Amino acid sequence: MYEELKKTVWQANLQLVNYGLVILTFGNVSQVDREKGVMAIKPSGVDYQQMSPEDMVVLSLDGQVVEGRWRPSSDTPTHLYLYRAWPAIGGIAHAHSDWATSFAQAGVEIPILGTTQADFCPGAVPVTRELTEEEVKGEYELNTGKVIVERFEHLNPAHFPACLVNGHGPFAWGQSAAAAVDNLLHLEKIARMALLTRLIKPETPELKDYLIKKHFERKHGPKAYYGQRKEK
Amino acid sequence: MYEELKKTVWQANLQLVNYGLVILTFGNVSQVDREKGVMAIKPSGVDYQQMSPEDMVVLSLDGQVVEGRWRPSSDTPTHLYLYRAWPAIGGIAHAHSDWATSFAQAGVEIPILGTTQADFCPGAVPVTRELTEEEVKGEYELNTGKVIVERFEHLNPAHFPACLVNGHGPFAWGQSAAAAVDNLLHLEKIARMALLTRLIKPETPELKDYLIKKHFERKHGPKAYYGQRKEK
Amino acid sequence: MYEELKKTVWQANLQLVNYGLVILTFGNVSQVDREKGVMAIKPSGVDYQQMSPEDMVVLSLDGQVVEGRWRPSSDTPTHLYLYRAWPAIGGIAHAHSDWATSFAQAGVEIPILGTTQADFCPGAVPVTRELTEEEVKGEYELNTGKVIVERFEHLNPAHFPACLVNGHGPFAWGQSAAAAVDNLLHLEKIARMALLTRLIKPETPELKDYLIKKHFERKHGPKAYYGQRKEK
Amino acid sequence: MYEELKKTVWQANLQLVNYGLVILTFGNVSQVDREKGVMAIKPSGVDYQQMSPEDMVVLSLDGQVVEGRWRPSSDTPTHLYLYRAWPAIGGIAHAHSDWATSFAQAGVEIPILGTTQADFCPGAVPVTRELTEEEVKGEYELNTGKVIVERFEHLNPAHFPACLVNGHGPFAWGQSAAAAVDNLLHLEKIARMALLTRLIKPETPELKDYLIKKHFERKHGPKAYYGQRKEK
Repeated sequence: MYEELKKTVWQANLQLVNYGLVILTFGNVSQVDREKGVMAIKPSGVDYQQMSPEDMVVLSLDGQVVEGRWRPSSDTPTHLYLYRAWPAIGGIAHAHSDWATSFAQAGVEIPILGTTQADFCPGAVPVTRELTEEEVKGEYELNTGKVIVERFEHLNPAHFPACLVNGHGPFAWGQSAAAAVDNLLHLEKIARMALLTRLIKPETPELKDYLIKKHFERKHGPKAYYGQRKEK
Repeated sequence: MYEELKKTVWQANLQLVNYGLVILTFGNVSQVDREKGVMAIKPSGVDYQQMSPEDMVVLSLDGQVVEGRWRPSSDTPTHLYLYRAWPAIGGIAHAHSDWATSFAQAGVEIPILGTTQADFCPGAVPVTRELTEEEVKGEYELNTGKVIVERFEHLNPAHFPACLVNGHGPFAWGQSAAAAVDNLLHLEKIARMALLTRLIKPETPELKDYLIKKHFERKHGPKAYYGQRKEK
Repeated sequence: MYEELKKTVWQANLQLVNYGLVILTFGNVSQVDREKGVMAIKPSGVDYQQMSPEDMVVLSLDGQVVEGRWRPSSDTPTHLYLYRAWPAIGGIAHAHSDWATSFAQAGVEIPILGTTQADFCPGAVPVTRELTEEEVKGEYELNTGKVIVERFEHLNPAHFPACLVNGHGPFAWGQSAAAAVDNLLHLEKIARMALLTRLIKPETPELKDYLIKKHFERKHGPKAYYGQRKEK
Repeated sequence: MYEELKKTVWQANLQLVNYGLVILTFGNVSQVDREKGVMAIKPSGVDYQQMSPEDMVVLSLDGQVVEGRWRPSSDTPTHLYLYRAWPAIGGIAHAHSDWATSFAQAGVEIPILGTTQADFCPGAVPVTRELTEEEVKGEYELNTGKVIVERFEHLNPAHFPACLVNGHGPFAWGQSAAAAVDNLLHLEKIARMALLTRLIKPETPELKDYLIKKHFERKHGPKAYYGQRKEK
């Protein structure tokens, strides 16, 4: 019944591997079908090479397994919380990719030092606060979703397609699972270049506002002229 | 009518991917045909894996699309400005490759610390000044070409085959699209080694003048004896 | 007689290469068969590409060659000592992988800075003391095993599946040769991210105890809910 | 007449590419045939992918081309000088590999911080002095060979199979072209780990003498017990 959705999610998960963003069984990608009210996600701890589309797990947005024989990714409640909070997003990707995760571990926002980042989001990539002991001991994965949404109180998730969870790693999203994975790759690149830039010149300032705006809007604004069609 | 040119440009764009200099749809390569007065360039925001030679866009040097169904790369006015300013160059490549872009983001010239760089150019790799707010809000991509040419007021683009655009990334050129891409790869290597060298010994001085001259001239001078034929 | 064991060990050794953890003939992986009282290990200094399952060397746990025409890995006495000391482990992997080895060379424990490490072990990755001159001049490889076990006096090898040998490099273990190799890959990743994190923010503190415990136990604890089955 | 030698040298040059030690046309590998008094080497500036065994250039040890239609590598006089000075070596490899070259550019010896380096040579990897203006303007490539040999006045090239040429890059050697290339790969690894180690802990001391001796001799000494046969 959800063949198309499961195949799409399976391919997006494999793309994580092709992009070099994950090792072993780490990482997970999901996509939501808003009309049917379901999400498909990678099964927990399963080897990427041995997965097939049928191994994807389909859940209702309140977390009931609708189809699938495996336990879904342990980060499933985080994905579901984000889909419920943000109706505009269609796919979510999570990985412990080296450079973005290192910023998350340091609890440091990725400063916007160049146009490659302005093509991604109009400012620093945000980091959540640390979860409290109660939040960790309680519904940990659900609370992970909550601190992300809390961090976005004054940010638009359609403009900032990623967030670093403090001490943990990045979550990225987009209109589809494939777009979320592409955003995670883009994020990894800007994290790497931010650290290299600061190693070259520690006091490198953030990019000028007008240049951030120019690059962000030529790609994502109403008058965007980058690319052939709008899709992110 | 421009089959050969489009195929050449398509191959050079794919080489960017093979060299690991680009991700997603980033980057663009062009080549000019001076006799016919046209340039072919990658279409904007199109996936490298799905491109074919027919997808390349052919434009006159004043920017009119002559052939092609796609919108050309958003950096097209930069390429065109450089071709008009510098009759000796035949191809241009642009990417947000990690190490060269990091120097561009830091606004720091790549210091010449070894013979690998002297094989490329006889000095530091230049960085442009920052574009002003007016230049960014106006014809941004055209102005990007202008600040590159401004930076080369006292430099010969045949000797310095690349420039870092401040806060943005590198542009490289050569006698053909393929040579420009090779130069971008060479640039990425010298950027990486310059940072590593400074991490090993921050006070590493620039290479001695006579050694710079020796290496540059044995490869590019009138009495060059590196390689089988002269071509860059 | 030991066909299955030798094939398993051969595959795990090749996985070291696939994972990019070794160059040339470096590294070695073994697996024990507790019932038969034997261990199979890579032959010493043999090229990975030219090895076949029959080239693996089978030894009794007191070090007598039982089957095989080659000299076993020079680190064989280290493997054997660990198998004798720790009945719960089934496979051991050793490599001079860049980042973990660099921590070993610095004699610095890998600090636990994020959940990726908490998924691996509940604390810093330990480093042995330096071997004394007598220990090096004597039964060096045996003594390498002894300092590892000495370092684990107050640590559980089932919880900490790796140790850095001071000035040398990492040894990792698990329930099988394949699990040991996976652990070595995981170790390499957390070593890399620990250094990158400290480059981003040198004073990054260790992860909160309750978050370490949460991640470690959701993957390895009695109530683990990561993955489909318990296996490490 | 020199088919076997040319094929061997061609394969060793391709191995440089497989190992990721070179880009474009950089680097060169040679092997000497002492009985016939000739050396085969890569042609200058020729693309690796398009080379075949017949493209290798054979020269007498005093530098006369004996066979081949191409100009030999521009570094040929360096190779020839080393073969004449050191009768025990059989192959030489040169590349501008990132990490070893960065140490060469910094003019800093690679300190011996771990057993991976002790497996390679019993101490720091030496760096030559800078060439004088006269040496550079004169027979530059010959003089490059001379400063290497000068640096080895008190070192045995059979024990230290590589040297960093100040401001330039590494040369490595061995009993054959293939062994020289393997040594260059080993060198690149120890250079990378030396920098990473110093980033982890800047004051990391050199390895203890007795541990250097142990590792070097178990692999290269008269009582070596690493590997199946002696060959370096």
